Amino acid sequence: MKKFIGYECSVCGKSYSLEDNIEYVCPDDGGNLSVILDYEQIRDKYQVEDITSQTERSMWRYLPLLPVRDPGYKLTPFRNVGWSSNYYPVNLAKRYGFKEFWVKDESKNPTASFKDRASALVLARAKEIKADIVVTASTGNAGAALAGMAAAVGHKAVIFTPKTAPVAKVAQLLVFGAEVILVDGNYDQAFDLSLKAAREFGWYCRNTGFNPFTAEGKKTAAFEIWETVILEMNDREKPLNVFVSVGDGNIISGLHKGFIDLYKLGWLPKMPRIFGVQSEGSAAVSNAYISGTEEIVPVSASTLADSISVDLPRDGLRALRAAKETKGAYIVVKDSEILSAIAELGAEGIFAEPAGATSFAGVKNAVESHLINTSDPVVVLNTGSGLKDIQSAMKAVNEASIIKPSFDALTDYLDSK
Amino acid sequence: MKKFIGYECSVCGKSYSLEDNIEYVCPDDGGNLSVILDYEQIRDKYQVEDITSQTERSMWRYLPLLPVRDPGYKLTPFRNVGWSSNYYPVNLAKRYGFKEFWVKDESKNPTASFKDRASALVLARAKEIKADIVVTASTGNAGAALAGMAAAVGHKAVIFTPKTAPVAKVAQLLVFGAEVILVDGNYDQAFDLSLKAAREFGWYCRNTGFNPFTAEGKKTAAFEIWETVILEMNDREKPLNVFVSVGDGNIISGLHKGFIDLYKLGWLPKMPRIFGVQSEGSAAVSNAYISGTEEIVPVSASTLADSISVDLPRDGLRALRAAKETKGAYIVVKDSEILSAIAELGAEGIFAEPAGATSFAGVKNAVESHLINTSDPVVVLNTGSGLKDIQSAMKAVNEASIIKPSFDALTDYLDSK
Repeated sequence: MKKFIGYECSVCGKSYSLEDNIEYVCPDDGGNLSVILDYEQIRDKYQVEDITSQTERSMWRYLPLLPVRDPGYKLTPFRNVGWSSNYYPVNLAKRYGFKEFWVKDESKNPTASFKDRASALVLARAKEIKADIVVTASTGNAGAALAGMAAAVGHKAVIFTPKTAPVAKVAQLLVFGAEVILVDGNYDQAFDLSLKAAREFGWYCRNTGFNPFTAEGKKTAAFEIWETVILEMNDREKPLNVFVSVGDGNIISGLHKGFIDLYKLGWLPKMPRIFGVQSEGSAAVSNAYISGTEEIVPVSASTLADSISVDLPRDGLRALRAAKETKGAYIVVKDSEILSAIAELGAEGIFAEPAGATSFAGVKNAVESHLINTSDPVVVLNTGSGLKDIQSAMKAVNEASIIKPSFDALTDYLDSK
Repeated sequence: MKKFIGYECSVCGKSYSLEDNIEYVCPDDGGNLSVILDYEQIRDKYQVEDITSQTERSMWRYLPLLPVRDPGYKLTPFRNVGWSSNYYPVNLAKRYGFKEFWVKDESKNPTASFKDRASALVLARAKEIKADIVVTASTGNAGAALAGMAAAVGHKAVIFTPKTAPVAKVAQLLVFGAEVILVDGNYDQAFDLSLKAAREFGWYCRNTGFNPFTAEGKKTAAFEIWETVILEMNDREKPLNVFVSVGDGNIISGLHKGFIDLYKLGWLPKMPRIFGVQSEGSAAVSNAYISGTEEIVPVSASTLADSISVDLPRDGLRALRAAKETKGAYIVVKDSEILSAIAELGAEGIFAEPAGATSFAGVKNAVESHLINTSDPVVVLNTGSGLKDIQSAMKAVNEASIIKPSFDALTDYLDSK
């Protein structure tokens, strides 16, 4: 069984078959390509129960819907990506009046972010096409994910990252043994440099959006939302509202692709509404959404949410459509709202990095602006662990008091409060 | 069904029934108490299959062997503790010649360390005895675990931690909304202060070892090793060798208790050998082991592995016996060996904090000193995520190079290597 039949360009809509030997983007216009599955063949071969009855609890349970063969690597962190937890934060839900409200926590992935999904899938592809060295540009998480997944399966990884990346993310890259090149520039410059290096040295390029397989890895989160939330809902005709932060735009595009796959297979009763949330300091896709255009104009990005700080979103067009075509929306939040969201999620035992908390900040705005009602079911994605950016976390909370190690000092302190 | 029938003092061996209303330690000599289960009743009621056939994938699958009632809290991080991954690091195993070698990775627990097990169990106990405020002293992880678990279930937590704790751990405490008191002193002073505060203010004290329920939470890791490793081994008569780092001594004591429970139930074919690994700068239990005495003499601890930097191990006696009674041993490693171990685990995609990598450093020493053979089956516990101590991680690797964002700068850099 062929696992997929070709690619479709997101800009010109042209389809390419496997015989066209396309590696990355559309040869005509450079548009990002979406992988085309053979829905008919999948439908013939699989029922929903074949998927949901599996014992594997990772993204690899969805192999029948993925464009790669089973890569193996059992008992490694690679095989442990996905199947992230859905939490129901009782107090938070109560405070805002939600009845059906889940936080899907991606911080428990092996390298502590959503990006493991993309990196694992790209590595499975690299194995198939016998590419020894995989390269990526990254604001941190995608690189850490590629480095960690590559280490887990004995692959070589080269990572270009802005030297301003949080030190925790750089430490991950180094500990995982990747070749790390810190670029004295921004993400967009690191991106261009990694493309050039891939071309010149024949490295396989994982760059987000540019590589059609990253979205195929990320779509597995949509499959999990479908299986663990939508199929469990009492009223499946009520659309679920999925909130996710947007930087490059590839996570939201991947989620959209996942739901499209399920819908086309006839396995998804109702398409969820997808909401993209951006920081006002890095709002290129939101700007296009508000202007009602498909032209994504680069910004000069500045936000403390480093993972979504992007001048030119490399998957902006598909990211825009993910919200538009599902009757979702784009929402812009302030950095101060992101910090509040970190503290609110923390009070429920969920520690999110700024980009992870951004999606929850967006939920609050969506309620205030009546984009959703609190009677609507909501899934919020926390895309990364707060341990990845301690500096920002400390801005979200008040400092702790220091006392001398004596009971008198303690009572003085407690009395002074 | 009563879930447990009493306590036994680790110093004088005296047993206490539930009617004695003991809360923490032995009233006679202050010895740590072990919880006594009613093995006969459990054996009558449960078969191994009743445990192993459960669908719950967390430490709570072992409720029949835990001294608390089902605490509930479904769909929270609290309910998500445990059932950690066993990784088989192929290259590492090959390099050292191991055939059966697993790393049990506790870094994927909700607050990214082993300590979630103890904190969750103590909170279940707190719920039963209607204790509203739970307090602990902690070098960081136990506090973060208590803060995170308390946040997840809406409980109030007070944490005393040395002001020298890594900033990532302090950030966790604060983000989880605990009352954080940084003590201008060491862990031992924070411990004493928290005890006094618990007594004076009527707070329920989670302190490691002092509270008999911490070990009951930690023993669930032994249950998981039993279920996922020992029961799956071809030769169950060959003893498994379990390596774990030791600070306060409560994790190793908990593991030992878990295996004892299983052995007494007749469910464990052969007792594993348990190896405690300490940094040479914090080796109080190892010193006693080497001296052949049960007297634990405090040291003036100094190691970069902050989680196991302890002057006076609060569960030293049971920790010592865990190795002695199972024909294991104590092993001392240098901080430089801990740093090497971080890099070696990292190269397999496993990012451990110093205390987490300490156990693997101990395996290497155990092979060199012929305490084990490479034909023996080995489980190594990584007790915490490397993201909790980035500063130490950076000491384990070489710094990354910074280049200007141009292809010329890149080729210059690559040529210079």
